[in-house]
Amino acid sequence: MLPDFLERLCEIAGSDNVLSEAGQTWAYGYDNSRRQAQPGAVVHVHNADQVEKIVRLCHETGVAITARGKGTGTTGATVPLAHALVISFERMNRIIEIDTANRLARVEPGVTNGELQAALKPLGFFWPPDPTSAAVCTIGGNLAYNSAGPRAVKYGTPRENSLGLKAVSGSGEVFATGCNTTKGVVGYDLTRLLIGSEGTLAIITEATLKLTPLPEAKCTMQATYRDIESAAQAVAAIMAQPVIPCALEFMDGTAIKMVRKHADLGLDESVGALLMIEVDGTEKSITEAAEAVAAAARSGHCLSVDIAQSDEEVQKLWKTRKALSPALRTIAPKKINEDVVVPVSSIPQLIGGLEKLSADHDIMIVNFGHAGNGNIHVNLLVNPDDKEEMKRAHTCLDAVFDLVLTLGGTLSGEHGVGLEKRDFIDREIDPVALRLMHDIKKQFDPANILNPGKTIPPLESDSG
Amino acid sequence: MLPDFLERLCEIAGSDNVLSEAGQTWAYGYDNSRRQAQPGAVVHVHNADQVEKIVRLCHETGVAITARGKGTGTTGATVPLAHALVISFERMNRIIEIDTANRLARVEPGVTNGELQAALKPLGFFWPPDPTSAAVCTIGGNLAYNSAGPRAVKYGTPRENSLGLKAVSGSGEVFATGCNTTKGVVGYDLTRLLIGSEGTLAIITEATLKLTPLPEAKCTMQATYRDIESAAQAVAAIMAQPVIPCALEFMDGTAIKMVRKHADLGLDESVGALLMIEVDGTEKSITEAAEAVAAAARSGHCLSVDIAQSDEEVQKLWKTRKALSPALRTIAPKKINEDVVVPVSSIPQLIGGLEKLSADHDIMIVNFGHAGNGNIHVNLLVNPDDKEEMKRAHTCLDAVFDLVLTLGGTLSGEHGVGLEKRDFIDREIDPVALRLMHDIKKQFDPANILNPGKTIPPLESDSG
Repeated sequence: MLPDFLERLCEIAGSDNVLSEAGQTWAYGYDNSRRQAQPGAVVHVHNADQVEKIVRLCHETGVAITARGKGTGTTGATVPLAHALVISFERMNRIIEIDTANRLARVEPGVTNGELQAALKPLGFFWPPDPTSAAVCTIGGNLAYNSAGPRAVKYGTPRENSLGLKAVSGSGEVFATGCNTTKGVVGYDLTRLLIGSEGTLAIITEATLKLTPLPEAKCTMQATYRDIESAAQAVAAIMAQPVIPCALEFMDGTAIKMVRKHADLGLDESVGALLMIEVDGTEKSITEAAEAVAAAARSGHCLSVDIAQSDEEVQKLWKTRKALSPALRTIAPKKINEDVVVPVSSIPQLIGGLEKLSADHDIMIVNFGHAGNGNIHVNLLVNPDDKEEMKRAHTCLDAVFDLVLTLGGTLSGEHGVGLEKRDFIDREIDPVALRLMHDIKKQFDPANILNPGKTIPPLESDSG
Repeated sequence: MLPDFLERLCEIAGSDNVLSEAGQTWAYGYDNSRRQAQPGAVVHVHNADQVEKIVRLCHETGVAITARGKGTGTTGATVPLAHALVISFERMNRIIEIDTANRLARVEPGVTNGELQAALKPLGFFWPPDPTSAAVCTIGGNLAYNSAGPRAVKYGTPRENSLGLKAVSGSGEVFATGCNTTKGVVGYDLTRLLIGSEGTLAIITEATLKLTPLPEAKCTMQATYRDIESAAQAVAAIMAQPVIPCALEFMDGTAIKMVRKHADLGLDESVGALLMIEVDGTEKSITEAAEAVAAAARSGHCLSVDIAQSDEEVQKLWKTRKALSPALRTIAPKKINEDVVVPVSSIPQLIGGLEKLSADHDIMIVNFGHAGNGNIHVNLLVNPDDKEEMKRAHTCLDAVFDLVLTLGGTLSGEHGVGLEKRDFIDREIDPVALRLMHDIKKQFDPANILNPGKTIPPLESDSG
């Protein structure tokens, strides 16, 4: 970074908020993809005015910008390519307004999902998106990736739970999208266009989020099946009746075997697939609602459905699922964790295909995830230090993506694209749509300074 | 239209499907806005291939295109300006696939909302958007306007109920958006960008819609209040508890008075506002769910809450609301019907402000609509033949829009913009966002042939 640029950055944000030494900035150059790059500099912003001025400065000087929350993403989207300036939103983290009468909250992007939920809970509300990293990840990051979690099956993703945004375009122009209400059809939907665009179209400086009343009660159950086909049939049966669960999580046979090796969970040897199901609602209706879901869960070759009757039993039922992550960490601390999606009815073909790919490429694959959306976390258990194995794993991954697309699926349900999947998405998105995305990008960010090189692969004409 | 153009049109679609005589085409030049224009020609399409070829022909020859379903829109969006070619989708109306296991349907744009619901019902599913014109309006039109209806309060609008689209851009290029699943974050969200764009960005040729299981049971209730403040408080209380009703409709004091004049409904003179509420769910849980909503409805100066115990009582409770439209038709057959939205807590200020505007401009205003979303149908009872009154009405309408925006609302909740509101939307959308919308339009439709002059007002630089 040129001294003049840094000086102007300090004028805008205050020198206390600018880091330029490699030792200081290195910690802002990674995310949870295990990729890392050296930022050109880091600036901590405190308000939208600073963001506007910084983007104008970068637009003028051609410096790339990567916006960053807490770096919990898994795709490299916040890894600053091209010696970019990292704009950190950690300190721009106010909850500006919570308006329960109108079921909305206005927040700055740096507030964490957990902080927001904690502020909403005493008021009887929540914001539905619940990525695994909710305790630490920021709302800005959730919006950038359209991150969701188990609750999406009932309550949707950020795209279904956001009303409007304030943002700064790549040329430093401030604009607002959406409205304060759940209905609104004035102009094109720029809100959803920005959500999921991974900081490549504009920098979000404020979000108006749609709130949902907290359910009064929740009921947890575990259902076990002989095989994945039966579990998938049960998922379809559950999703075909009117009580939509607020979690419909799944573990495949390999995941169950793995957990069995590490902990005694009292699961019968015949169990080949498992569903963890949660139903929420009012105190008075929860028992009936849970019974409706349990009845659907009992379809096919169901071995058991256990409904927790106490907090203790809830913990016991979650024990198998919760034992999985530590077991995976023990076996393969640096596993590759994908988040593909297939239509629910294709889950058995996906799992069957994955078993074959696992054997063909000699890579252990464990599958679990959000069955109600068909969003499966495909985990390739690899040791990154074993170069031969990593080569096989990447060939295998390539085939996994092809399998997913053959089954009518999509390459990412909630992790996003970033760098990890950027060069695969042209298998899913047709060339015309991809060119339109590039065209849109050019309008929002004519100098290509916003998170360049992320999300959409370069056009052939660009690289040729 | 030049003979050569018409000849090529006949080659593509067959001469039986091309209308070019003014007498024949006139019937395709109106919508429910009471605007009408003479189409240059009309072509009935049967498949996506024809649409592609026609758009290419129009792009090449510079002929404007207006896509048309059944012409039930209320904003003039399907009125063919500039002697446009009307592409009628009436005959491109197949339900291609209903896949209940994956909760989706693939349809052509010309299928009516009613036909789709009828096909889904025996399978135990429905598609939530339910505009008043559902029996005759097309899915393509619903998507073009993002049209919703009472059920949106619980189930959302087409933007929350569509998975993907196939479309043809203004340069005749075919592309697909979205995916087959409820989660998917690969690339920018072009699906929602097209939904609500009123045929100005691309012509939709196929839609993959997200289905919802039909509720087993429904419970209808009517709540009456002394005044609008009490009713609005009750709406907020209802929306703050976890059982979201599937309809939360409202009538103001003027509407009630008007109905009282035309029918004896047994409503007490003290009733100043009324809510019609419907709750849906499973057979076993419906009574408890309805009671939870009724408890919330009883807040504030509630005069009565009547819960229907039989089909007969359901009809009786709906009688007041259903008597309103005939009463309005009798008094003002050509009323101006707006569909503004304000935050729920601002409904009393909106109604108060409207009462003042009504007095100031000597225009009778009647309000009813979808209170749960704050989406109020503001009806100005005018006689279009009375020019003096119409002049006052338009001045009044101008002030209504300002009032709505002052209250943090939006100018349209479900009718869209078209021509009617086009020249007002720059009061709501900031200049940068509006310019970005123009920029997007140019990428999708470089020759400006797709429904030109609709939805977004010309830029000042264009008109200057």
